[in-house]
Amino acid sequence: MKAVIAEIITIGDEILYGQIVDTNSAWMGTELTKIGVRVKQITSISDSEEHIVQALDDAKTRADIIIMTGGLGPTKDDLTKTVLTSYFHTSLQLHEPSLADVTELFKARGKDITELNRQQAFLPEACTPVRNVLGTAPGMWFEQDGKVFVSMPGVPFEMKRMMTDIVLPQLQAYFQTPQIMHKVVQTIGLPESILAERLENWETNLPPHLKLAYLPHLGNVRLRLTGQGTDKEQLEQELQQEVDKLEEIIPNHIFAYGEVKLEEAVGRMLKEKGLTIATAESCTGGFLAHKLTSISGSSAYYQGSVIAYHNEVKTRELHVKPETLQQYGAVSEATVREMAENVRRKFSTSIGVATSGIAGPDGGTSEKPVGTIWIAYADEKQTVAKLLHFNKDRLLNIEYTTMAVLNLVRQSLNATVEE
Amino acid sequence: MKAVIAEIITIGDEILYGQIVDTNSAWMGTELTKIGVRVKQITSISDSEEHIVQALDDAKTRADIIIMTGGLGPTKDDLTKTVLTSYFHTSLQLHEPSLADVTELFKARGKDITELNRQQAFLPEACTPVRNVLGTAPGMWFEQDGKVFVSMPGVPFEMKRMMTDIVLPQLQAYFQTPQIMHKVVQTIGLPESILAERLENWETNLPPHLKLAYLPHLGNVRLRLTGQGTDKEQLEQELQQEVDKLEEIIPNHIFAYGEVKLEEAVGRMLKEKGLTIATAESCTGGFLAHKLTSISGSSAYYQGSVIAYHNEVKTRELHVKPETLQQYGAVSEATVREMAENVRRKFSTSIGVATSGIAGPDGGTSEKPVGTIWIAYADEKQTVAKLLHFNKDRLLNIEYTTMAVLNLVRQSLNATVEE
Repeated sequence: MKAVIAEIITIGDEILYGQIVDTNSAWMGTELTKIGVRVKQITSISDSEEHIVQALDDAKTRADIIIMTGGLGPTKDDLTKTVLTSYFHTSLQLHEPSLADVTELFKARGKDITELNRQQAFLPEACTPVRNVLGTAPGMWFEQDGKVFVSMPGVPFEMKRMMTDIVLPQLQAYFQTPQIMHKVVQTIGLPESILAERLENWETNLPPHLKLAYLPHLGNVRLRLTGQGTDKEQLEQELQQEVDKLEEIIPNHIFAYGEVKLEEAVGRMLKEKGLTIATAESCTGGFLAHKLTSISGSSAYYQGSVIAYHNEVKTRELHVKPETLQQYGAVSEATVREMAENVRRKFSTSIGVATSGIAGPDGGTSEKPVGTIWIAYADEKQTVAKLLHFNKDRLLNIEYTTMAVLNLVRQSLNATVEE
Repeated sequence: MKAVIAEIITIGDEILYGQIVDTNSAWMGTELTKIGVRVKQITSISDSEEHIVQALDDAKTRADIIIMTGGLGPTKDDLTKTVLTSYFHTSLQLHEPSLADVTELFKARGKDITELNRQQAFLPEACTPVRNVLGTAPGMWFEQDGKVFVSMPGVPFEMKRMMTDIVLPQLQAYFQTPQIMHKVVQTIGLPESILAERLENWETNLPPHLKLAYLPHLGNVRLRLTGQGTDKEQLEQELQQEVDKLEEIIPNHIFAYGEVKLEEAVGRMLKEKGLTIATAESCTGGFLAHKLTSISGSSAYYQGSVIAYHNEVKTRELHVKPETLQQYGAVSEATVREMAENVRRKFSTSIGVATSGIAGPDGGTSEKPVGTIWIAYADEKQTVAKLLHFNKDRLLNIEYTTMAVLNLVRQSLNATVEE
């Protein structure tokens, strides 16, 4: 079965000038993918007639579905409706239900409809209007030579509602779309290149209708396996078989399936095991605590932290021995072990974790260059410390360290720490 | 003078499938706009040879500069380099300096270079390599018929560093872009709509070659004033005059000029005044400490923090009176005042700040709904507390609260706190 191809065109200078980030397209890409439509291109263009016409001409040579957002506002620089009217050789007509919707919207705000907004209810005769219950600009659905053109406002919540309620179901009905499925496998602890080497054999032997993508971010590599077929159940089964094989190849590096963050996965483990945690942070400066508490419901396992930026705080609040600091320095295995053990005791938690390192850009020495970082995990049975080396900028060193600590907790709870 | 036109092409299915939001293009759009280059189109396409070639062919009919990101990883689905090599009728050659960079990068991590990563140092002979000091994939700069083609990795921090250090200066030199100047004024404490009302008169009277943009983020509205002209000195003077007028209109809401973050501005104030700070955080969960320590050199004024997520930690570590918690609750003026005062004493700092609130999505009551947050500032002379109300999601409530605390510190040090 031939894949149904879509292109997204966003219209408006604010995206081109970087004044807003285009989050609409990602959302639409996700939703279209889910119904088996393949998004082949996303194009952001300026509010200009010539440019809109060119983008439409280009898109229709490649795609079955052309979805436009933006340029439907009531002001002069909003050209989309005018351009579409001439593009489809049609003319504007008052669409009474749209006028009623807009009038109602203004009434609800205690205001009278303005002339500019009244104009928004005039729509191209050749289109099927797409109702907008949340704003003043209706959408438009055009059909030409078996292709569908949809125009919607760029306001995210209006567009999303129109897509969900009307456009996506209509597209599914119009193009009997093929089955597309995804499985996401979350890995941690192996850089992309090393992961790729380990998976090379498996990847090469994937059946041709299953595709693999590597999506790395801060040491967490998401593996996305995409399958296309006609039989949903069979596809699901095939994908699951490959995921099972994957689990055999890298059992210790998979922390979740689906869109789950590492801090969320660790949080779930702690919750399930009824464990609590506290952090003692030097170089991460609170970022580790922040990650743990960014998860709703984290108060079930997270107690608190001491951020000990100065050595004085390390000795006074975390009871690190002055001799330890004297003999080994703050960035050392001995210090970070004491920090983890002592914060655990201080907060009476099951687990204590600690970080101490040189985040940079200053503070490095030839013996301990910037990016030298010690982390530790302590529970009632054991204390494990690990030395890390990063060569990123300050913020990234902090973020990578935080991921490494979360992974150390995960591995310790699973008893799979690699020294 | 004819405008220099750029197009951005991002390569990779993950954007089309909506698995990642394309933030790179917005950043590049901003930076290119700043050097007087007009971005006319942003195109996201799939990892396919045919599609990349088509996008390049289309783009070069319209633009002077074609900037590509993505598809430079070491794995099989990364096609950009191969496609560019055949597109520019050239061949791959080992680029020794790139190999040295990659080898060094692995060495710093205590690892040997893999064969896949070694391949990344092979570059098209016809290109000028663009050094990547933060990752394994070098960029490529091609010139053809007076047009420039640049290919960079899609990893945001690598791309940003390459753009800033190499690509933007080279583009400015190559195209002799027109004189464009910016002044950025950082404001905090006034929502965009209220700020716009206060500035309406001033904005209306701006000379036509000066343009104003409002760039709001987490309560911090950056005002960017852009001037275009021929005489650099005169332009500089005109912009400064307008900034001076601005300072008279909103003197208490400007915290810096240029690209300075609020935590950086507050850090500078503390450093200049020789003051130190500690934080006691409940609902912000370490994010405030993280913001303060995200600034290099923050150890000069930042001592440490107690993250007191549980009430037990509030009483035991921060000595909040049990009666206070009993009578007023953790989210109350009384509690947050004690937290700020006590953390200041505990860490022997000049200033203590504290947060306690309901970040959500759970934990709200009819009396104290989600988004009810108390913050406090304490120094040797005074303690100031403030009640905030946000109706965002958990992470945004945390981020807005952190900005509000930083602003409270700034205002307290300037003695301009508005009750």
